[in-house]
Amino acid sequence: MSGIMFKRVALIGIGLIGSSISHAIRRAGLAGEIVGSSSTAATREKAVELGLVSRAYETAAEAVKDADLVVLCTPIGAYGKIAEEIRPHLKPGAIVTDVGSVKASVVRDIVPHIPEGVHFIAGHPIAGTEQSGPEAGFAELFDGRWCILTPEPEADRLAVARLEDFWRKLGSQVEIMTPEHHDMVLAITSHVPHLIAFNIVNTAAHLERVTDSEVIKFSAGGFRDFTRIAASDPVMWRDVFLNNKDAVLEMLGRFSEDLVTLQRAIRFGDGETLERLFTAARAVRRGVIQAGQDTNDPDFGRRGKTDKAS
Amino acid sequence: MSGIMFKRVALIGIGLIGSSISHAIRRAGLAGEIVGSSSTAATREKAVELGLVSRAYETAAEAVKDADLVVLCTPIGAYGKIAEEIRPHLKPGAIVTDVGSVKASVVRDIVPHIPEGVHFIAGHPIAGTEQSGPEAGFAELFDGRWCILTPEPEADRLAVARLEDFWRKLGSQVEIMTPEHHDMVLAITSHVPHLIAFNIVNTAAHLERVTDSEVIKFSAGGFRDFTRIAASDPVMWRDVFLNNKDAVLEMLGRFSEDLVTLQRAIRFGDGETLERLFTAARAVRRGVIQAGQDTNDPDFGRRGKTDKAS
Repeated sequence: MSGIMFKRVALIGIGLIGSSISHAIRRAGLAGEIVGSSSTAATREKAVELGLVSRAYETAAEAVKDADLVVLCTPIGAYGKIAEEIRPHLKPGAIVTDVGSVKASVVRDIVPHIPEGVHFIAGHPIAGTEQSGPEAGFAELFDGRWCILTPEPEADRLAVARLEDFWRKLGSQVEIMTPEHHDMVLAITSHVPHLIAFNIVNTAAHLERVTDSEVIKFSAGGFRDFTRIAASDPVMWRDVFLNNKDAVLEMLGRFSEDLVTLQRAIRFGDGETLERLFTAARAVRRGVIQAGQDTNDPDFGRRGKTDKAS
Repeated sequence: MSGIMFKRVALIGIGLIGSSISHAIRRAGLAGEIVGSSSTAATREKAVELGLVSRAYETAAEAVKDADLVVLCTPIGAYGKIAEEIRPHLKPGAIVTDVGSVKASVVRDIVPHIPEGVHFIAGHPIAGTEQSGPEAGFAELFDGRWCILTPEPEADRLAVARLEDFWRKLGSQVEIMTPEHHDMVLAITSHVPHLIAFNIVNTAAHLERVTDSEVIKFSAGGFRDFTRIAASDPVMWRDVFLNNKDAVLEMLGRFSEDLVTLQRAIRFGDGETLERLFTAARAVRRGVIQAGQDTNDPDFGRRGKTDKAS
């Protein structure tokens, strides 16, 4: 275990991301001990049973004691309260970080509660699946993905370097940016895509002329991919939209403007505009594949995988 | 080869769907011979080389001679011209069908050209991937998926039953409906989802404050799934939107109305509405999985499949 970076790591929240961090820490042998906390008894039991943590506490205050690294992995709406709660219990010299999908509001909510001598560095691994809970995690989740860190200008350089090193050892690539820029980038690459996926799924579920059963039966024409994205944790996403309002509304405005252009082209039979815009979109896909951010298997490799419905 | 249903099948167009039909026909031994046509020399050569067709003709007129089943597999914008061209060459008693994503306009474009004694039955297998061309096809594409047939009220019942049987033997389930209802169902389960995927990819590619490189690097947060859908054939999709204008505009109107509700909830910090709508969307995903229309692998089973980017 010569690779140990932190004697004790505390995971505050043990869902998809918390459990995946545990798997990836253990794969790389980065921690002497992993403890965790969850307010839900079933999650605590499951986390211990799966070996994700050696001890699971009910409160974050108990979990952070003696921890050298504290990772907040709950929905971001809970961060302010947690930061206030753990404040008196943080070990001097500890690093506190998080995995939330919004960064400016997180910095705003947490920084005032961080005592002198403790290093807070906000972070966000750009990785996930639509599944939730301690059983959903796996060690490979971060492999080849990017983790964005948004340290304050006055952050301790050694602490930042240590956290970068930690994420690289979990399998990630690391990028540093400001919280504000992170929130703008993620608004378009993650938040608005989720919002429109949630939205079209609900639109489809409330039509008078097409039944729910038809929507489901004939979903393989594209709709089913949106249902996957829309199956993500509702509370986590509620908190994302409440905390990244300005950037999401800006990107949503752009999306809606562009959609009106397509709508007009359809209304007036302007095939040239449609073909030109559809062709342009293809090039972005090539970029995503080349950057290693998706597989090139057609249809996500579903080929031959689905069972026949009866 | 006792299972032969048609002595000769002619595939007009040999792209993803045409080549998949060939694979599935040969898997089930349904045809004595498969011939095809493509206006592109490279496609004809590739189709013969891959054994998809025994002969590849430049014109549809040549390909349909002596064919008992003719399947139009080109973008639907070409159907009218093809129907006119093949009219004098169709074998009496032959079945002519298609695989186009719109049905009312297809019926309108083709029916006037179908001679007495030939049976036209429009069809649409709800299956596909984002890839195109004769090399993209595979035999399992239709397994467990639905094929919708939209026969005219006066269609020959035996011919319809034969085509239903054919699609079942290709692996599909079959449903019969009117062309108009088909177009409404597909507008919401396929056409609008593709339109908004094309749209968000283009929105993301034209931002001043987020670079294209950032959009691609951080695409694993949801955006990459949209890029896959937006990588579909631009000409095919242009023709879909030009030919299903009314239903697409109706569904797009509903989508936009619903999106405004979410937008207002974000603007005014209404977390209750957001959580309620996001939770509702999750239930639809369960329906899609239960109906066998998608795998339940998290993240489409991408887990551990992507290579690290360098």
